[in-house]
Order: sequence, then structure tokens, then C-alpha cells
Amino acid sequence: MDAAAAAERENEMTVENTRDVAVLGLGEMGAAIAGALLAAGHRTTVWNRTPEKAEEAVAGGARRAATVPDAVAAGEVVFISVKGAAAVRKILEEAGGALAGRTVVNLTDGTSAEARETARLAAGSGAEYLHGQIMTIVPGIGHPEAVVFFGGEQAVYDRHRPLLDLLGGKGTLVAADPGVPVLYGMSVHGIMWGLLNGFLHAAALLTDEGVELKRFLDQAAPSLAALMSFLPSIADEVEHSRHAAEYGALRHHHPSVDDLLRESRDRGVDDRLPAHTLSLVARALADGHADDSYSRLVDAFRTP
Amino acid sequence: MDAAAAAERENEMTVENTRDVAVLGLGEMGAAIAGALLAAGHRTTVWNRTPEKAEEAVAGGARRAATVPDAVAAGEVVFISVKGAAAVRKILEEAGGALAGRTVVNLTDGTSAEARETARLAAGSGAEYLHGQIMTIVPGIGHPEAVVFFGGEQAVYDRHRPLLDLLGGKGTLVAADPGVPVLYGMSVHGIMWGLLNGFLHAAALLTDEGVELKRFLDQAAPSLAALMSFLPSIADEVEHSRHAAEYGALRHHHPSVDDLLRESRDRGVDDRLPAHTLSLVARALADGHADDSYSRLVDAFRTP
Repeated sequence: MDAAAAAERENEMTVENTRDVAVLGLGEMGAAIAGALLAAGHRTTVWNRTPEKAEEAVAGGARRAATVPDAVAAGEVVFISVKGAAAVRKILEEAGGALAGRTVVNLTDGTSAEARETARLAAGSGAEYLHGQIMTIVPGIGHPEAVVFFGGEQAVYDRHRPLLDLLGGKGTLVAADPGVPVLYGMSVHGIMWGLLNGFLHAAALLTDEGVELKRFLDQAAPSLAALMSFLPSIADEVEHSRHAAEYGALRHHHPSVDDLLRESRDRGVDDRLPAHTLSLVARALADGHADDSYSRLVDAFRTP
Repeated sequence: MDAAAAAERENEMTVENTRDVAVLGLGEMGAAIAGALLAAGHRTTVWNRTPEKAEEAVAGGARRAATVPDAVAAGEVVFISVKGAAAVRKILEEAGGALAGRTVVNLTDGTSAEARETARLAAGSGAEYLHGQIMTIVPGIGHPEAVVFFGGEQAVYDRHRPLLDLLGGKGTLVAADPGVPVLYGMSVHGIMWGLLNGFLHAAALLTDEGVELKRFLDQAAPSLAALMSFLPSIADEVEHSRHAAEYGALRHHHPSVDDLLRESRDRGVDDRLPAHTLSLVARALADGHADDSYSRLVDAFRTP
């Protein structure tokens, strides 16, 4: 094959893999998504309710659509990244019949019920639907380590996989139900906020004492690294409602939580987190669960 | 060197390395410590306020002391593992003059102020003092991966290192101040409770939906593994009071926390953790910190 034939063949492959896509919503995240699609050579049409926000994408080679139906009609795959489920609903209503035969990839945050309602609306207009829960910040879009949890039909996910992988290298279809990736995302976030709040509370205590936080993180690294390894056994105990613990039972946690509470009060540091944890542990002890693992506290989260 | 000479030399080495130690307090942890010392061949004297608890250690080769001064007099190094600082104080007061020239290794939980007060009492009786914060459950005592945070003079720690290493292979002297290992211990615990509460809250949501927790942990593993890696940068931001964030700022956290709160309420799951986090974020936004990193919330922990 000579050079000209090779160039021709490369051109054909590019043309073959090029898709017509639309991005609705050009906030920071939507703009990054449009940028990733453009960078991969896809014919990208963009729309934003305030049109000025489209300028960056247009400069990058995108076509600007004047209306939602125009944008939707231009894309086989329609990415939606706006603020809240109400804004998505409005877009789907404006799109109307243009949605038929398209695939909507909704990347808008919300609750699981909202994701399901959006999926129903899309299906009602004849569109296929995938929900994507993006787990990275804007500059992570397209990064090989960036995680996106998808929900939808396997066949739809597989068909659009090359496009979806442009959002992040660690995309996964976690369920057919579009509510599940939402639950995954908020579960990871809830664990993150728990961890960060615990750390910021500790940071308030340690810096009050003049301890350098970097030194603490270095010296406590083996203990901190072990914490994540507790989750599978806690999960197993919750899953099977088997909470009996030979060691590290709630009766052992109680005095330690009380120490943290007293230390916080001694130093004038916010005592609400240890006070809350102590109340959960004390209630479980009062209910006769002193010899149970910490996993027993799931009862308190289930029936507050 | 023939076999008899070798045996003699081994015996000499053993004798040379054998120390006189005492263990006061034979709860589950004290009993495990006495067991580790006995297993290493040290002449171990034990005492417990209710003498029956000494039986296991005596069966293992320990000598039982009838009184606190008798126990303390028998040990160059005196390990104390009881319930709370008041019980330690009582022991030190009963020991009185017998403490002179001994090294007290206090492994009793409490606050940093209590550890310092105990150190002062021991010093007042002419004893050297180390505080040890044990970060493992009972069966971990003596394990190569078990962490103990020590506080005290480097020279005292170094002199007794072979004994101290019997408690856990990952012992570290973290500061001269006996209050610091206490703060390290409660910091790790506070981070742990934050993480576990976040996970149990997530578990309540996920199992309400019928999602298998093991499947969630497997599929979300990359996202969860990344969480711990946030701590060094958060620590750095707190340390230098530099909270400006280009991405992932508090204004981005706010709607996500609100989603978690609404999802919890929709499902009848305890909403107190997300409600608390939302109140912290909302207050920071109201104070003009919308473009700051999550690390800005340390202000709320410092001045509740």
C-alpha cells in the first residue's frame, strides 16, 4: 500500500467512525464534554439556553443550534448536562418529536427518582436512554482514570461505547435501571463527605495542638490505609444481617468515641460529629447490641 | 563450637535479653500484652484488681503479684492497661515509691490531657514514662502489621524498643509529648467513624434499592480507592490556609449534598448526616466561600 492509499484509507476510517452528536448544556461540564467529542473528530452540534456560552465550543469546531429541536435533530446521540432534573425535563419537552430514534445520554445530577422520571420521558418520545453519573471534576473529562457510572440497556451502552469512553476511561454500565448509577454516585460522595468531615475534625484537633498535618498523614499512613479494607466485611455483615463481633465490638467503640467527644470539648472544637456517633453507639448498646460489630448501626440509618 | 557450647551460648543470649516486666490490668488487651511478653520469654509479673483475671497469665508462666507496689517493684518496665485515666491514677498512687527508676508504659485510652496528667504523676514518683496508643484489636497484638503510636523521650523509647516491638510490628514514636499519640489515635478513629457512617448511610440507600453491596464495592472500587488520596492536598490547604479551588469548589458540592439529602428523605433513610454536611456547606457559601475547596470547612470545626 503506497502513501496515498494509506492516507485515503485512514480518511475512510475516520469518516466511518465519525458520529453526529449533540451537547445540550454548556456549563463547565457540558463544555468539557463538547470539547472531548470535538477533539475526537465527531460532528458536534451544541446548544445552551444562554447562547453566549456556546462560543468556546463553536471556536473549537462545533455547530451552534438555535433551538433545542434543531440541536436534537442534529445528533444521533444527545448528551444533556444541565443544572437539575427540571431543566432536563424542559429540554425533553421542547425537543418533542425530534427525540424519536435518538439516544439521550443524560449526565445531569439529581436523585434516582428524577433519573427514572427523565428516562420515562425520553422513552415516551421514542428515544433510547442512558444515565451517566460523572465522578470526576471538569479537567478529568477524557482522562483514562476518570470514572462514569452508566445506567441503561446493555445493547445501547455497547453500541455507543466508543463515544461514552471519551468521557472517561473508567466508564462502567452498573445497571439497566437509570436510578442505580445515581445511587452509586451519591454513595461514593456520601462516603467521601464522611471521610473528609472526619479528617477536617481531626485536623482541627491536631492543628490546635500544633501537630503538622503532613507529619500525621505520613506517620499514620498504615492505619489510614487500612480503613478502606474494613468496608468489604462491614458490607458482608450488613448484607447477611450477621453483626456478632468477637473483637472491636460496639462496647469497645463507646469509650473511644467518648474520648474524642471529651477531647473536642476540651479544645473548643465542634463536638457535633462525635456527639452524633456516640448517640448512635449508645442507642445500639441500650438495645442490647454491645457485642455487635459497628455494622449494627446500619439499623439506625434505615429506621431513624 | 560444639552443640553443648552452642546451647549454652543460646541460653546466655536468652538470659541476657530477658527482662523483668510487669503488666497491671488484665482485661482483654492487658492479657494479650502479658501473653506477648511471656511468649518472648520475659519474666512477667501480673496484677489485676480482681485477681481471678490473672489466672490465664499465671497458667502461661506469669507470677501473680498481690498488690500494686509488689507488681511495680517486680518490673523494670511496667505496662498499664486499664479502663480510663482514673484507674491509672489510682494505680500510680498505690504504687508510690515503688515507681522510682521504673519505666511506665501506659496503654490506657483517654484524652491527651489525661495522658499528660498521667505522665506528670509518673515523673513525680521518679518513673520514666511512655504513652502507647494501640491501634489494633486484641488478636492483633504482636502482629507485624499492628500499629502503636508512642509518645515520650526518644532515649527511653530506644532503650525499651525490643519490648515495645512485641506489642506490634508497626510501632512508632510520634512525639516527645505523651498527648500527641492520643491525638493521633483519636484522629484515625474519627476518620474511621466518618468513613463508616458514610458507608452505612450509603448501605441503607443501596440495600433499600436492592443493590448488592459487594457489587457496589467492586464496581466503585476505583472511585473509593481515590478518596484517601484527597487527604494530602486537603491537609496542605488547611496547613497554609489556602482554600481557593478552580474545580470541585463548595458551590459544586452544594447541589450534590442536596441530592443526597433529598434521596435519603425520599427513601425514609436517616437524613442527619447529609443535613449536617449541607448546613456546613451552606454556611460557607453564605460566608462568601463558594469558590473555595472543601478544606474551607475546617473553619466550622475550629469555631463551631
